[in-house]
Parts: sequence; structure tokens; C-alpha cells
Amino acid sequence: MRDWEVIEGSLASARGFRGAAASAGIKKAQGALDVALLLSDAPDTTAAGLFTTNLVAAAPVKLSRQNLAECRGRCRAVLVNSGNANACTGPAGLEVAKESTRAAANLLGLEAQQVLAASTGVIGVPLALELLTGRLPTLVAELSVESAPAVARAIMTTDTFPKSLVLRSEAGGKPVHVAGIAKGAGMIHPRMATLLSFLTTDALIGPRTLHNLLRAAVDVSFNCITVDGDTSTNDTVLALASGASGVAVRPGNASWAWFLQGLTQLSQELAKMIARDGEGAKKLVMVEVEGARRPSDAERVARAIANSPLVKTAIAGSDPNWGRIICAAGYSGASFDPEKVEIRVNGLLLCRDGVDAGFDEARAREEFDRKELTIRLDLHQGRSSAEIWTCDLTHDYITINASYRT
Amino acid sequence: MRDWEVIEGSLASARGFRGAAASAGIKKAQGALDVALLLSDAPDTTAAGLFTTNLVAAAPVKLSRQNLAECRGRCRAVLVNSGNANACTGPAGLEVAKESTRAAANLLGLEAQQVLAASTGVIGVPLALELLTGRLPTLVAELSVESAPAVARAIMTTDTFPKSLVLRSEAGGKPVHVAGIAKGAGMIHPRMATLLSFLTTDALIGPRTLHNLLRAAVDVSFNCITVDGDTSTNDTVLALASGASGVAVRPGNASWAWFLQGLTQLSQELAKMIARDGEGAKKLVMVEVEGARRPSDAERVARAIANSPLVKTAIAGSDPNWGRIICAAGYSGASFDPEKVEIRVNGLLLCRDGVDAGFDEARAREEFDRKELTIRLDLHQGRSSAEIWTCDLTHDYITINASYRT
Repeated sequence: MRDWEVIEGSLASARGFRGAAASAGIKKAQGALDVALLLSDAPDTTAAGLFTTNLVAAAPVKLSRQNLAECRGRCRAVLVNSGNANACTGPAGLEVAKESTRAAANLLGLEAQQVLAASTGVIGVPLALELLTGRLPTLVAELSVESAPAVARAIMTTDTFPKSLVLRSEAGGKPVHVAGIAKGAGMIHPRMATLLSFLTTDALIGPRTLHNLLRAAVDVSFNCITVDGDTSTNDTVLALASGASGVAVRPGNASWAWFLQGLTQLSQELAKMIARDGEGAKKLVMVEVEGARRPSDAERVARAIANSPLVKTAIAGSDPNWGRIICAAGYSGASFDPEKVEIRVNGLLLCRDGVDAGFDEARAREEFDRKELTIRLDLHQGRSSAEIWTCDLTHDYITINASYRT
Repeated sequence: MRDWEVIEGSLASARGFRGAAASAGIKKAQGALDVALLLSDAPDTTAAGLFTTNLVAAAPVKLSRQNLAECRGRCRAVLVNSGNANACTGPAGLEVAKESTRAAANLLGLEAQQVLAASTGVIGVPLALELLTGRLPTLVAELSVESAPAVARAIMTTDTFPKSLVLRSEAGGKPVHVAGIAKGAGMIHPRMATLLSFLTTDALIGPRTLHNLLRAAVDVSFNCITVDGDTSTNDTVLALASGASGVAVRPGNASWAWFLQGLTQLSQELAKMIARDGEGAKKLVMVEVEGARRPSDAERVARAIANSPLVKTAIAGSDPNWGRIICAAGYSGASFDPEKVEIRVNGLLLCRDGVDAGFDEARAREEFDRKELTIRLDLHQGRSSAEIWTCDLTHDYITINASYRT
């Protein structure tokens, strides 16, 4: 088996998949892509999904959970819209999700349960069924490998760029692909899968195995990012495996680790794209905590720092204010000795034994000015570590979110 | 006993107290007040304190905790500075806190342990002892009732107005006062006492009773506010009782409830001033949750809403985006049925049974445009309730915090 390498492409680079996107008038902007369809032509396609842990789950989340269970992971299509979350829309909202996926299934010759749904956008506003169903014939007619790149654009809301990546490897001389798209920007906090991301592969994987692989990859990628600490009602990560490569992935086999490596790399790159493109963000911030007594301590410290508005505004202002970093660690709930803490930013030592390390201010400001920052805390208490990715908090976050609905 | 009424005054309106403030050059701004002294002349003065729960506690917090314990609540003075938190400054920082209070005690004819310390400002920068001790003779010489109002100004950092309040009542024909000052603005999150606040009274109260009264008042006031979810290293609330009124407050006596009412009213008004003056804030937001199954559920929901950057930016933009409010409730960790939730803002019903209540958009926008908003959620699950006060999240928060040190 070869290493995974990045190639140009789309979700349809994984053989067996086709995609299409259209404008259904759900977004306010005239002609904006806001609805998309993804299909696997392989009858034995498997699917797995991870969804928001928010108690207030959107209608498409409820429906997709149910459909995955009812068809035992044998789903073959995804119908997705942006511009309206179809959340807090009551039984009527659930009907819209059901009827739109049923209509898509009819046109595609599938069982209704084989079509999964996902939505993103404003919460609490009814989503008109006709807007979705009206564009279905066009979407089905346009399903193709060539149209698949548009799906990544159709799921964007406040994202500033489409997020898409394809990895390629070989097993037994046969090419295998994992491909993914994602959207993020705001209301992003890792209490589970997060945001919307759709992953495709042409590997041959059973539904239970696919679910386990997805869970493992998401735990070290999408669950490691935070933009604002808000866990959305619509978070959804779906993976579909067409099997078209003929390469099988099974647990307890060398193929497992190899495939997980590719899926993890794909998910991590997409997750970093989301953190980098957090609403208003100018910088990608990687918080690495090591030397914790327990993994839970490491994660608490990393999350507290990554979610601190004071840390994130200091980074926006390129201010090497390490005091706010240690302060966030202190209220995280983790157990450690503040007088052993060491803090480095991009390798530059700012704080040793919990006090100022006597760093060069101008040099520190330079590091804080970069587009990518790694904040590394060593607690010197043990061997556990954790990593969380986030972004800075800027004026643009306020501008975007003060008038999101209007 | 009479009701408590607001009167003009300062910390020294409680008889027995004197105060003074000066400029010691700790703040960058030329001539800015940044050091203050508060003294009770009554030998039997009692004191109580509540401090940050942050593991990274500032030197003055450590020292004040120790002094209160060592002199069994018989402290008589407070030395406070702004412009430097004296946090993450190691053993040297603790020495500065110790030596400066010892020097103050010498000049005042007190035991070293009878002087408490508090600091607020930037973290991790050494605080020069000479700056503090150099101004001590002036401060001691100027201690007076007339100079006491300046103490409220000397503890300000990014606060836009000094926070001070005096209440007066009578017991057995004798006037009794509770007075307080506070500073807040940023790094404010209720995981205990919070920020800096100093309260004085001329009631006669034993140290243990004073501590219990303070705890009870703080739990429903300073612990109910949040600006940004960041718990400071320096949070300190101190209460001093001179006994100069001759009116005794004892547990199990009618005086207890009467005094607690005054102390609570004082603390709540000061806490609301802090929320209203959160960094960059334009609006005071009161989040009230009722109908929860348990008190902890009510508090979780209220805190999640009050800390959600998405809710707070929507309020800044006067956008009646109730979907973000129910979304925050959903990820709070509280247990409830989303389809029973009711949301009102300033009495206007926005959401019923978890879906849009069909409100008038223009009217809702008007309510969101007011300087004070009450967000009330009824979960319709039980009888528990909770209240948290916060502010909106604006561009100015970013501006203030992106360059706080410079």
C-alpha cells in the first residue's frame, strides 16, 4: 500500500459518485447555489453518519439518523441545502425533510430511507418544500462527475472559500480514493461531529466498519476544532463508500490502519480549513497541551484556551499576552501546578515556571502576527496531551453575526 | 427596621471608614489614579472575603486569603492597585504584595495581617514594590471621608464609569449603611466571587456571620454575571464591618434577613452595573430561565445563553434571532424537551412549543434595540429557575482586547 497523496478532484474522484448543485431560491442572494445532491451508483454502497449532540436537533438530523438505522447503513444519496437550517420548525419541518428526500428517492429509483438529508442556515424559519422539490428534476438530470465540484460551493453559508480535498493511494495495484467537502464558519464547537462534511470513498467497507472508521477519524479532526464554542443544531458528518475500487477494508487487517490514515488525514485537513475560515478569522491557531496528568486535563486546558475570547482577541491584535493563556488554563477545571507551566508560541518561550520567561517583545509580536500560530503549553505534570484548533476573534465575527438573518 | 434606600455617598458613608487614592505610575496614562487605601478606624472591625476559583491565583489573592485566616477576620484595611494584576509573577510577586501591605500596616499602626491586598490589570508583568510603597505616605496622610469617592475611580481598568452605591436603613432608630464599589469590564465570569468589589458597613457583625452574609449575597449577585466567560486570576470581593452604628446583626435574629436584604440589593445593583459596563457593551441583558426540572438545569441553560457569542452578537445587531437562544439552551447540557420551550424578550413571545410563535418582526427588533433586554425562557418541565446577567458582544470588545497590553 502506498502513502496517501493529495490530488485535484472532487467528491466524485472516488469512483461511483456523481454530484450536482443548483439555486433553489432558499438563500437571499439571487442565483446563489443552495441545494445539492450526491449519489453513489453502486448498489452496495455503505454509509455512516455522526450528528450533533445538541438536544435541539434539526429535522434533517433526526431524519438522517432514522434513515441510517432503518436501512442499516445502506444509504446511497444525500440531499443538502444551505440558507435554512430546518431547525426548530416542528413536525412540519420534519415533513419537509421526509417529503423532499422521498421525492429524490423516487426520481433516483431508491427507497426513501436510502436518501440522507442535511441543512445549514438560519434556525426557526419554515423551509418551503416546493423550493427543494422544484429543483430536484434538474439536480437529478445534472448528476455527473463534472458537476460534483459545485456541491462544495452549494453548502457554504458564511464560509469564504469552498472546502474540498481528495487523497489517492493504491492497494494491490488498484487506486483508492478518499474525498471530502466541508462547510463551517460559525456556531462551531466540537461536542461531536460538527458542521457539515460529506466524505466519499471507493473502498469497499461494511457499514459497521465504516461507522467505526468515521468515528475514529472525526475524534481527531472535526472534534478538535472550535470557532466560538457554539454547538450547532445541524452538525452532520456523513461518509459514503461505493466499493467501486474493489479494494476491501476490514478490521483486524493491514487495510484498516492504512485506510484510517487516509480518512484521518482528509478529515484533519478539512477541519483545519474550517478553523482557518472561522467567521471573521484571519489566523489558524493550534493549541497543543502536553505534560498533563490525564488526557481529560489536557483537553480541558486546550479547549479553555481555544474558547477564551480574551486569548482570541489578543491573537487578533498580535499581542503576546501569555497571561491570558495561563489564566484560561487556570479556570479550565484541570488539575496542575501553575508554577510549573511553560508556554511557547511558534517555539518561542514566553513563560517558564508560570512566570515571564524574559522574551523579546518584538520577536514575540512577529510570531503572533503570522497566519498560523501554535500555542504549546507544557504542564510538566505527566504524559497526557491534547490538541485543539481554532482561529482568532476579530471585528468581522461581530459584523457577520450581528446581522446574520437580515 | 426600615426598607433600604439609595443615598448619595461613598464607602465612607458607612461610619468608621476613610479612603484615599493616588497616582503611582502603574497605569501608563499620566496621572491616572491607580492605587488606593481603605481603612476602618474601629478596632473591632470584621472582614470577610471571597476569591477567584481560578487555579492561577494572583499574589494579592493568595495573601488576602492568608491574612484573613491568620487574623481570624479582624482585618481593617485594604490596599488596592490597578494597571497590574500581580499575577503569574512568582515568589517575587508574593513578596511585593506582602511588603506593600506590611509597609501600609506600619504606617497605620496595624498588624501586617490586618491589611488586605487586591490588584487588577495585566497578568505576568512584575509589579515594582517602590511604586506602591512610594505613594503610601501620601495615601495615609490623605485618608478621609472626603477622599473616599476616589477609591472607586482608582480601581477602574477598562471600565467606562466608576461603580459605587450606598444604601441606608434604620434599626431601633439608629441609621445603618451598606456601601460598595466595584470594577469589572472584561475577564468576567461567575465561577465564584468575581472581579473587584469592596463593601463597607457600619453594622456590628461577627467575622463568621459577615462571611456567611457575604457568601449569600454574592451567590445571587456577582455570581450571576458574565461578560466573556473568562474567570480572572484576581477576582476579589471584600466586606468590612466597622460596627460604628451600634446596630448588631446576628444569625437567627430578624436583623439577619433585614441586613442580608440590604447587602443583596447593594451587590445586585453593583453586579448589574458591571454587566452593563462589560467591555464594549451597549446593552444590559438579563437571562431568566424558569420551568426547569432542577436548579442546575436552569442555571446551565441561563449560562449557556449568556455566554453564547452568537446570541450576544445578535443582540448587538438588534436581530431577534431566537434560534440561537434555543440552540444555546440545547447544548447547555440541561435536560428538557425542545418542543415545549417558550421564549420571550421583554415580554414579547418569539417562540412557543419550540417553533416560531409568529411575532411581529419590527416590534421584536424594537425590543432588541432597547438598552435593557430580558430574555425569558420557560422550559415547561418543572419549577426551578435561574437568572444570569450579561451584555451584548460588540466591535468595541474586540478593539479593547486586541491591544490591551499596549
